[in-house]
Amino acid sequence: MSKTYHIAVIPGDGIGKEVTPWAQAALEKAAEGEASFTYEQFDLGAERYLRDGAILPQDEEDRIKQADAILLGAVGDPRIKAGILERGLLLKLRFDLDQYVNLRPSKLYKGVTSPLANPGNIDFVVVREGTEGLYCGAGGAVRRDTPAEVATEVSINTAYGVERVVRYAFQLAMKRRKHITLVHKKNVLVNAGDMWQRIVDRVGEEYPEVTHDYSHIDAATIYLVSDPSRFDVILTDNLFGDILTDEAGAVVGGVGYSASGCINASNEYPSMFEPIHGSAPDIAGKGIANPTAAILSAAMLLRHLGFDEAAAKIDAAVEADIEELGSTTRTTEQVGKDILARI
Amino acid sequence: MSKTYHIAVIPGDGIGKEVTPWAQAALEKAAEGEASFTYEQFDLGAERYLRDGAILPQDEEDRIKQADAILLGAVGDPRIKAGILERGLLLKLRFDLDQYVNLRPSKLYKGVTSPLANPGNIDFVVVREGTEGLYCGAGGAVRRDTPAEVATEVSINTAYGVERVVRYAFQLAMKRRKHITLVHKKNVLVNAGDMWQRIVDRVGEEYPEVTHDYSHIDAATIYLVSDPSRFDVILTDNLFGDILTDEAGAVVGGVGYSASGCINASNEYPSMFEPIHGSAPDIAGKGIANPTAAILSAAMLLRHLGFDEAAAKIDAAVEADIEELGSTTRTTEQVGKDILARI
Ligand SMILES: CC(C)[C@H](C(=O)O)[C@@H](O)C(=O)O
Ligand SMILES: CC(C)[C@H](C(=O)O)[C@@H](O)C(=O)O
Repeated sequence: MSKTYHIAVIPGDGIGKEVTPWAQAALEKAAEGEASFTYEQFDLGAERYLRDGAILPQDEEDRIKQADAILLGAVGDPRIKAGILERGLLLKLRFDLDQYVNLRPSKLYKGVTSPLANPGNIDFVVVREGTEGLYCGAGGAVRRDTPAEVATEVSINTAYGVERVVRYAFQLAMKRRKHITLVHKKNVLVNAGDMWQRIVDRVGEEYPEVTHDYSHIDAATIYLVSDPSRFDVILTDNLFGDILTDEAGAVVGGVGYSASGCINASNEYPSMFEPIHGSAPDIAGKGIANPTAAILSAAMLLRHLGFDEAAAKIDAAVEADIEELGSTTRTTEQVGKDILARI
Repeated sequence: MSKTYHIAVIPGDGIGKEVTPWAQAALEKAAEGEASFTYEQFDLGAERYLRDGAILPQDEEDRIKQADAILLGAVGDPRIKAGILERGLLLKLRFDLDQYVNLRPSKLYKGVTSPLANPGNIDFVVVREGTEGLYCGAGGAVRRDTPAEVATEVSINTAYGVERVVRYAFQLAMKRRKHITLVHKKNVLVNAGDMWQRIVDRVGEEYPEVTHDYSHIDAATIYLVSDPSRFDVILTDNLFGDILTDEAGAVVGGVGYSASGCINASNEYPSMFEPIHGSAPDIAGKGIANPTAAILSAAMLLRHLGFDEAAAKIDAAVEADIEELGSTTRTTEQVGKDILARI
């Protein structure tokens, strides 16, 4: 008998609501016979906030915590001041659910045009720390709105938090091409950078087959443009990971093909899977959003639950779809149906 | 009678020593009849440090402070632990000499191949704050090298420091295409980001002809790849400016064509001009380093001293040289002579 998993679904705003059903459909089809799913929909995001002021009520968060995994669409609306939903909903979930691995694969699919003239063979994963660094919300301001204002932002980094994500990266590298590039800015951020490097060196000794090197964040942004195929696993902190994965998304032809997982690798809390793109208010409601990234996030969810074969089915279906039809103009529904037919 | 300026020259390490004489030669030739220069050479950088342990002795810094401007080559050597020379020499000068505007133009020259398939017309300037943010060196570590280690890095931002660089950016925009893009991460770094945005909005009211918009740092790294011609003046903080200017250098075909100025715009202390590239130990001593970026830094120095026409002569010579000969393989001396002949 197949096991049943309970999935919390947060479609969110704009195109998030349009692509998420396709992620669910892909999940069902790929895992047919192996696993089944029950869903609980959560009405969270900008529209909810604008309606009743709620961002993440405690009882809803408690119910989300009970799920086996979370599917998120996209959250955001230009009418809302920057930071409110990000810190109150998205980052709050990442932190409260201790999703310390933010996993972001970048792959240039056949059939997708990269903005690079000679992109080469791009296929790497960014392992971004998800619960520390400058994202802690430690900081403040004094004398706000006066000429004497001082505003601070504090990056907090712990050996506890760094070591667990470093271990995850080495384990992942063992399943891939066995190479890690640590990205930091240790020539300026000497305290945090030195700690990251020491922990990578030490954990690396346990994985003699995995080679690792180091790149400053500024140099890494160059390599992503000039030689992206050099990377296998990029290991980095919360802010640098945010920056690198967006640049990586551009380099592989747009964030429309990039999914991500916010993973609690010790499974105390559910992990969360989402496309990297935003709510795209400009195209929302037109039925033309590309559901590919959302469908890829369903594959990441399946892999996280241990269904490697089902995940691979989705990946292969997406790959074939893009190769054959990636350059055609299709509606959300057409792309969704085309991919589903191949699963 | 032409005025004489006193220039502190820090050739530094590796190719820094090979390209700096060409910056001096370009300076001389372009300003002939208008200005003359005396030079004081400072033996600072990795080689000096490895020889006698000195990084920036007080009496040498005092003499550098007396100069009218500083020409720097490049500093660094892989044998030295990250952070020592950066924080002890380069950043110490930027901070002690209050060089609060880090000015970094990016231009795609005719004759240079961009890694982008369709680069468009790239011509923007990054105005990077140079004396605040995460570069302050405020941070520390407790329980170093234990599983309970905590390392912090503190970004300090003041209205005083932000307002002066914001004003510089608006004045610069008035001489260009009158558009500023503020880059920050105000949805996460809410304290600093909100202060930057408020100051830009307020100062912007004094410049009604200049339009300004905002981009998160992660989105900005996408635009640099997907649509770099959208930018005119990018205004940003110390760390984001470091990251964006390296990516920008890659997008315009390599940091070999990028110069930068660390500018004290109130002229209490000398400003410093340098190519963006490093000391490049791999090609040092071979006489093949490209002196173009160093020569462009001489143009920035001249413009800073008020010799706009002389600076324009260098810019035009470089532009013509690259267009005609940019794709040929030449020695340092050949490129230097070719450009000088056109000045
Ligand atoms: C929306 C924002 C808070 C978020 C981040 O900075 O992590 C986003 O950019 C991302 O990369 O998931
Ligand atoms: C060498 C380093 C400290 C420096 C910086 O980070 O500012 C460099 O990358 C630069 O951009 O000038």
